[in-house]
Amino acid sequence: MRSKVMSAEAAAELIECGSAVGMSGFTGSGYPKAVPTALAQRIDAKHAAGRPFRVKVWTGASTGPELDGALAKVDAIEFRLPYNSDPTVRDKINRGAMDYIDMHLSQVAPVAWQGFLGPLDTAVIECTAIKEDGSLVPSTSVGNNKTWLDRARQIIIEVNNWQNTDLEGMHDIYYGTALPPNRVPIPLTRADDRIGQTTLRCDPNKVVAVVETHAPDRNLPFTQPDEVAYKIAGHIIEFLRHEVAKGRLPAELLPIQSGVGNIPNAVLTGLLDAPFENMTSYTEVVQDGMLDLLDTGKLRMASATAFSLSPDAAQKLNADISRYRNKIILRPQEISNHPEVVRRLGCLAMNGLIEADIYGNVNSTHVMGSRIQNGIGGSGDFARNAYVSIFMTPSTAKGGKISAIVPHASHVDHITQDVQVIVTEYGLADLRGLSPKQRAELIINNCAHPDYRPMLIDYYQRAKQHSFGMHAPTLLDEALSWHQRYIDSGTMMA
Amino acid sequence: MRSKVMSAEAAAELIECGSAVGMSGFTGSGYPKAVPTALAQRIDAKHAAGRPFRVKVWTGASTGPELDGALAKVDAIEFRLPYNSDPTVRDKINRGAMDYIDMHLSQVAPVAWQGFLGPLDTAVIECTAIKEDGSLVPSTSVGNNKTWLDRARQIIIEVNNWQNTDLEGMHDIYYGTALPPNRVPIPLTRADDRIGQTTLRCDPNKVVAVVETHAPDRNLPFTQPDEVAYKIAGHIIEFLRHEVAKGRLPAELLPIQSGVGNIPNAVLTGLLDAPFENMTSYTEVVQDGMLDLLDTGKLRMASATAFSLSPDAAQKLNADISRYRNKIILRPQEISNHPEVVRRLGCLAMNGLIEADIYGNVNSTHVMGSRIQNGIGGSGDFARNAYVSIFMTPSTAKGGKISAIVPHASHVDHITQDVQVIVTEYGLADLRGLSPKQRAELIINNCAHPDYRPMLIDYYQRAKQHSFGMHAPTLLDEALSWHQRYIDSGTMMA
Repeated sequence: MRSKVMSAEAAAELIECGSAVGMSGFTGSGYPKAVPTALAQRIDAKHAAGRPFRVKVWTGASTGPELDGALAKVDAIEFRLPYNSDPTVRDKINRGAMDYIDMHLSQVAPVAWQGFLGPLDTAVIECTAIKEDGSLVPSTSVGNNKTWLDRARQIIIEVNNWQNTDLEGMHDIYYGTALPPNRVPIPLTRADDRIGQTTLRCDPNKVVAVVETHAPDRNLPFTQPDEVAYKIAGHIIEFLRHEVAKGRLPAELLPIQSGVGNIPNAVLTGLLDAPFENMTSYTEVVQDGMLDLLDTGKLRMASATAFSLSPDAAQKLNADISRYRNKIILRPQEISNHPEVVRRLGCLAMNGLIEADIYGNVNSTHVMGSRIQNGIGGSGDFARNAYVSIFMTPSTAKGGKISAIVPHASHVDHITQDVQVIVTEYGLADLRGLSPKQRAELIINNCAHPDYRPMLIDYYQRAKQHSFGMHAPTLLDEALSWHQRYIDSGTMMA
Repeated sequence: MRSKVMSAEAAAELIECGSAVGMSGFTGSGYPKAVPTALAQRIDAKHAAGRPFRVKVWTGASTGPELDGALAKVDAIEFRLPYNSDPTVRDKINRGAMDYIDMHLSQVAPVAWQGFLGPLDTAVIECTAIKEDGSLVPSTSVGNNKTWLDRARQIIIEVNNWQNTDLEGMHDIYYGTALPPNRVPIPLTRADDRIGQTTLRCDPNKVVAVVETHAPDRNLPFTQPDEVAYKIAGHIIEFLRHEVAKGRLPAELLPIQSGVGNIPNAVLTGLLDAPFENMTSYTEVVQDGMLDLLDTGKLRMASATAFSLSPDAAQKLNADISRYRNKIILRPQEISNHPEVVRRLGCLAMNGLIEADIYGNVNSTHVMGSRIQNGIGGSGDFARNAYVSIFMTPSTAKGGKISAIVPHASHVDHITQDVQVIVTEYGLADLRGLSPKQRAELIINNCAHPDYRPMLIDYYQRAKQHSFGMHAPTLLDEALSWHQRYIDSGTMMA
């Protein structure tokens, strides 16, 4: 391996035009920091010389500005999967300049093995260290690294010595997956089960470059949750207490899955003061609030595929990593998000949304039905298989110009069957066991912003009179009019 | 048990007003034939006397006229789950006179255990025989019978001696399910694995009535597939051959899941002449075409939760049941449809649809977005977890007045991530690995009816110019206009 150490620029020369590149990285952690930037420079020079050069980029989920940002700015990405949150990439997708496949994150690895995406030419994987036996100590995310290393024709490794070498031992890389007819049960029955090995296998014959880096992850400053977020969190904690009191949830709850951001962090903060002990988490990412919960001991352990921390929290993690290492497990995303495991464990899924309609169809991805925000991510993996599937959102966006509760979702990511609870700062709608009309009344009354509630009631009442069918009353010529009004006039308010 | 033998009328007296009744039955087989009809008569008499009386009806899936039809005609059903295909029930739901929850069929049993649906008061279960030890030999469907027997406060058994006692040994009732945190892997790795026992446990202390019946299932005459169905089947067979040739499917394929009806039967007929040997099926129902495939030996075995046969095929089954018993396994629907198992086995899912939009969102349930047809059934269980998820439909309905391919689905049951192949008589669109715009072009060109194709192209081209975002270009003020035009003028054609 030592003979293959080279500069990022030299490594980037090994990536061919039109090829598919599988990169590490999940929610801004563990992505390669040098080779993608060098590749962007190389491609920029090619373009300046009038030569076409673009690549297909596969990752775990979102990455950082040195990867998606750098490549997108020089128009180097022809095709992107399975998730994105980079503003330049988003802009290109929404201008129609980049093809993007938005995928269930649990399905990326099996789909890559299935073969119809074509071959994977190069893997570019950040790791913490290369072991004597050639295996890799993963860094702050696992994502699809196992699959990229196994599938790629050639491998470029970035060894990031900024990452803490004491991360070793935290990861659990399961090598028992297969394509059917050879699949067997995933042998995981508790969130804290370890079912694999701590390092990533890597065929040294496929390694064409080793690049040394020293750079932090894209750790964004922590945004203090606002009052709306705390109100939403309060409703959720109250709901969980109620379910425990009813005997429908154990006192330690069930493993928590929590999306990333302001509101999830408020929920985690709320759990600090809630009467639940010995909790576990089976989720995609470990964020700031989860470290706090681990510190108090209220959260016994957390399983994820990546960190998504503020710089302060990253510092805290690194300062005390040997303690956290026994309480955190990072797994491949095909395991962290595996429907089989999510259903078995009975996760309590908490995810955000862009809009929900009065029947509980949820749009998580497309603003006004056509403009992609980020992607579905793991929300589909968790929501359909969760023990309780909760979606949470402020009741309005854009200073009240957009209602998060609409007559008809302009795009659907989560069908009513997979949406059991909707929460806004105004309240919580427990939709379990309800028919569409029962759901509508609860969502309008409990969740909608009071300014939009009369408009929703008016729509719903007229729909109940004039709809083609009365199972889920809908006025087709008005269903999407709120979105059109926003586009035309800048507000959904009539 | 013998002391509890009584008339259906006497048994129906034991069911209380407002109670929840869990009945056996799945796609018109194995449902109770006498007690529901007697209950309907009792309720009709109550209503005639000015007394309110309605019940909540839970089943496996659809049943027969003696159950759903009889009860709905006297307005006896207050609440229905998880699926329905009865015309009277459908009409009541769509007039807003009956509350209905349309559920993923795999989730009914776990949701019933979760408790928020409330208690189950009475189970009314058809069986073939009661054994000396009190256990029940299931009849032609298993459905949710295990769960209803376990959960109900009291049990009414219908012993239908029309059913063939040689059915004994065909069923596989798995008793290893639990609520989290006590769930373990479902130990099933092959479609022909047997993981349970052949009979249903039944607490004799809960049995309040045994009713003897002698009546056939609702076996509907076989409808010969038409030319359109055979063309669709032909495209699917060609696709499967292509996948085998590419090395993406084994020569014996992977376990087949197939919906019920005309087109699925045409596919099964097509498989009779296709070059695949030693196939297996892991599906919801065994229908006529599957018996034919078993007869030739091309299909090695079939796993399902119920039969759905024509009278001729039922006769064939009964005449030779000891031979079929070794080739057919009937399981609880939580196992036949279990996402964990469907994903592990890598099922080839083939389901029908009402409409698909140009991006591949599929509506399986709601005509014109609001009128329920039947329900989502098992299509969500299978489509999301399948190895290849195929949706098939004639390109038009109502003599060409409705296009099955529309600009924007008026209701979504299957999101684009879960829809990999769409087939009509005009062709097949393999959408795997494609971005929304790539999908749109393929669906319009390969699947749409030529009469509607220019309209779809016109919409799509204008959407690409004027949409808010260009990821999935949409004209919100036109998106549902085809449906509105159909309601207003009787045709989607402009």
